[in-house]
Amino acid sequence: MIKVKQKPKLKNPILVEGLPGVGNIGRVAVGYMIAELEAKEFAQLYSKHFFPFVMLHDDYEIRLLKNHFYYWKAKKKGQRDIIFLTGDCQSLSPYGHYEIAEKILDFVKGLGVKEVITIGGLATGELEEEPHTMGSVTSKKILKKYKKYKIDFNVGEKVGYIVGAAGLLLGIGKEKGMEGICLLGETSGFPIVTDPKSAEKVLDELTKMLGIKLDMSRLEKRVKEMEKFIKKVEDLQKKALTQISKEEKAPVKGKEQLRYIG
Amino acid sequence: MIKVKQKPKLKNPILVEGLPGVGNIGRVAVGYMIAELEAKEFAQLYSKHFFPFVMLHDDYEIRLLKNHFYYWKAKKKGQRDIIFLTGDCQSLSPYGHYEIAEKILDFVKGLGVKEVITIGGLATGELEEEPHTMGSVTSKKILKKYKKYKIDFNVGEKVGYIVGAAGLLLGIGKEKGMEGICLLGETSGFPIVTDPKSAEKVLDELTKMLGIKLDMSRLEKRVKEMEKFIKKVEDLQKKALTQISKEEKAPVKGKEQLRYIG
Amino acid sequence: MIKVKQKPKLKNPILVEGLPGVGNIGRVAVGYMIAELEAKEFAQLYSKHFFPFVMLHDDYEIRLLKNHFYYWKAKKKGQRDIIFLTGDCQSLSPYGHYEIAEKILDFVKGLGVKEVITIGGLATGELEEEPHTMGSVTSKKILKKYKKYKIDFNVGEKVGYIVGAAGLLLGIGKEKGMEGICLLGETSGFPIVTDPKSAEKVLDELTKMLGIKLDMSRLEKRVKEMEKFIKKVEDLQKKALTQISKEEKAPVKGKEQLRYIG
Amino acid sequence: MIKVKQKPKLKNPILVEGLPGVGNIGRVAVGYMIAELEAKEFAQLYSKHFFPFVMLHDDYEIRLLKNHFYYWKAKKKGQRDIIFLTGDCQSLSPYGHYEIAEKILDFVKGLGVKEVITIGGLATGELEEEPHTMGSVTSKKILKKYKKYKIDFNVGEKVGYIVGAAGLLLGIGKEKGMEGICLLGETSGFPIVTDPKSAEKVLDELTKMLGIKLDMSRLEKRVKEMEKFIKKVEDLQKKALTQISKEEKAPVKGKEQLRYIG
Repeated sequence: MIKVKQKPKLKNPILVEGLPGVGNIGRVAVGYMIAELEAKEFAQLYSKHFFPFVMLHDDYEIRLLKNHFYYWKAKKKGQRDIIFLTGDCQSLSPYGHYEIAEKILDFVKGLGVKEVITIGGLATGELEEEPHTMGSVTSKKILKKYKKYKIDFNVGEKVGYIVGAAGLLLGIGKEKGMEGICLLGETSGFPIVTDPKSAEKVLDELTKMLGIKLDMSRLEKRVKEMEKFIKKVEDLQKKALTQISKEEKAPVKGKEQLRYIG
Repeated sequence: MIKVKQKPKLKNPILVEGLPGVGNIGRVAVGYMIAELEAKEFAQLYSKHFFPFVMLHDDYEIRLLKNHFYYWKAKKKGQRDIIFLTGDCQSLSPYGHYEIAEKILDFVKGLGVKEVITIGGLATGELEEEPHTMGSVTSKKILKKYKKYKIDFNVGEKVGYIVGAAGLLLGIGKEKGMEGICLLGETSGFPIVTDPKSAEKVLDELTKMLGIKLDMSRLEKRVKEMEKFIKKVEDLQKKALTQISKEEKAPVKGKEQLRYIG
Repeated sequence: MIKVKQKPKLKNPILVEGLPGVGNIGRVAVGYMIAELEAKEFAQLYSKHFFPFVMLHDDYEIRLLKNHFYYWKAKKKGQRDIIFLTGDCQSLSPYGHYEIAEKILDFVKGLGVKEVITIGGLATGELEEEPHTMGSVTSKKILKKYKKYKIDFNVGEKVGYIVGAAGLLLGIGKEKGMEGICLLGETSGFPIVTDPKSAEKVLDELTKMLGIKLDMSRLEKRVKEMEKFIKKVEDLQKKALTQISKEEKAPVKGKEQLRYIG
Repeated sequence: MIKVKQKPKLKNPILVEGLPGVGNIGRVAVGYMIAELEAKEFAQLYSKHFFPFVMLHDDYEIRLLKNHFYYWKAKKKGQRDIIFLTGDCQSLSPYGHYEIAEKILDFVKGLGVKEVITIGGLATGELEEEPHTMGSVTSKKILKKYKKYKIDFNVGEKVGYIVGAAGLLLGIGKEKGMEGICLLGETSGFPIVTDPKSAEKVLDELTKMLGIKLDMSRLEKRVKEMEKFIKKVEDLQKKALTQISKEEKAPVKGKEQLRYIG
């Protein structure tokens, strides 16, 4: 379900996605851009494929889990209109990933999007002194376009696949006539930790690609603010998954065992 | 998906369901009636909620898992037209049980069915010397109608619920204006075994309720034939569920863990 | 599937939800109000996302798992028309929670509902001598409206999220233009126990908020009646989930492992 | 979702399916035929029932998981037009198998297909010196047609069922008026290994059945090429399933435990 507050008029906009994931690289990078550029929220998405709970903000306010769309208009030459996508979470179920990606792409296509940048993390299993920004693209054309940036395009050697929105928005996007690139920040990938260092590296290239100069001095502060919230959602999701399993002593193995016994 | 070969003209028909379940009481009882009465198959149902495999009959012939509808026309006074429902399996998923029951009921309602008899097994955990036939109904009216038979209506004390088709066809049926009764044959309920003794007990009452006399002398032989086939389907379902889990050494716990990592 | 017996004409009604959950606070509180106020049932909901079994009432009568809608008309000034929602269970699957909440909200919106009160339990892990009633709201406006009551609005500190109907009816409700409050009674949260003490505390505030005086002297008796039934459903759900897993010795881990092996 | 590049005009075409599975017999046999015959790709299928990730080809290029349709036109008498179906994967969920099979069959029926050949592997649990090619059919008519080939039709004795596309395309196909045969190459079935020896045996009979002569000399080389890719997808699927389960220390047992706790 996408709820549009106000449909912006945009000129050849590019979609930049950063949802929670490994190291929360995308979430942090896009969150920082939205804040610094003062991008405007214009639409929200919620889905039956998200966790079935609401969160409490400021201790008392109920909020549905959501993804948010923001737009920002080009200020000068070399820049272009941008739609940012970020949010609380991704799909809980495998096929929900496909359904939500389809919905997002159909929506932004209607706003004129023909190019997509997605941002994710690449778990290396090691603490990276100098995290690289890896890249993968929908076609050689895009590879050429972006090869002048400090992006390592040998992702395939390291990981071979991209799960969830960061991957499917490009994979399904291509089916809908959109091209794009996925930027993956190297990160340790330990039990889900926000990695601002890797996010900054990704932001360095992303802002250059978009012709935008960002003051990075507030990143640390902003990450701390965001991290608190991101961690909260992660914790709640884990808690939600485990709470019942502790309460029930019975060897529950799953609903699929609830077959006919009548 | 229900595929109708030939739509029979029936007068106030009653639906008698016997699908695989605890002790396979329903499957055996209805299977025997179909064979002895030479009821005619007129429709088949298959569903995406069944196990995703086909079976091999006579070693080489491929058959989709199915439920089958048969009809039998009343031969004399005191009898009524009957639609029998039996088959290979029930739903694999919980919500599939609801979807299939809705489909079945809408179909038989279109054929004039206003009353439903379902047959199941009640696992007692003990070997029963004299298995009782338990009963539960959709209303007091039906209780009165059938209380003259040797049916023990204190099911609630023993089990409290009826899972799958035997329960939902009556529960949802009532929502659609149908009344009915569920006959449950007591059976040990050990690792799914066909219990012809309990099935025969249920048949004794069922045939009386329907005004039909059946020669029970062939039951043993028929059960042996059916049992071979029923056991095969059960084994295949178990095999299908376990095969992969043995092959994979990885601690796979379920698709729901496949959340975003990109 | 919502089945309407009789569509009541209500004046600016408020929805008060109390379905089974932690401590069954909501179920008990709303159940008691319905009984004491002699509210009238006017609609029922059943869903393919519920457990696929029927229950046996009074030992012999088959009943589908359901949620029930009741209405009560204001008797004097300071009161308002109320729609109560209670029932046997909530969704078995995560996305079912969203689907059912959407269905409920669309239905009551059609009856004029603009405000929603949901009631749940907050598991503290400790036996509470003096259980607090916690509160969370859809907006500051509602916070102001209800801050004069003995409701602790620092829920976020203690739990951070509300799972299932109590949360989603408010979260999704807000998307549909409804405001509301969730009252959470503190309770130990041990293996699912009905907590009448906490429910009474919630009822104290709830009745004040609704301008209703209730004789609480029958609560204990009513809770005992309800508890027997609530416990039965809980036990059946657990039993349904575990029964098969005991029967099958094979290391069944879930249907998701049933991938292609042909 | 089936995306047609170019709808070929075919004369009484036969569908030959070879998707990944036990021993990857079908995948290898059909992949080799496509390469040697230079069959033309004309349509692609992707599905929300596939794993929710994209793969990286050539280290940098993003590709959605897909199934592919190719056609080849008869060159001389005794041959017929062929539609080949192969691809990266099959459904992740049980009911996805049914949905995808239905979609494929409706699509090829529209292209005139009345006969289907599916190819799979039969896990024997032993290293086969001389792997047999087993066969099962939709009817006696087809059995007669193909009994002159070296196909062992006593499959039922050995396995009893065929899971996934190889089975359902024939089982559901029959419901849609198509006949067909499933060729199963005997293979050890150890933790999913590509078995070119068994695939070659199947190809021997398959090419005879289709009146085609293939130069088998390149099979070894081609299999090595394909194997690298097939293994990659398998590894990614396993990795995707296990990665999160390692990261989370909490005893997550499945989404079905995420029931109401609010």
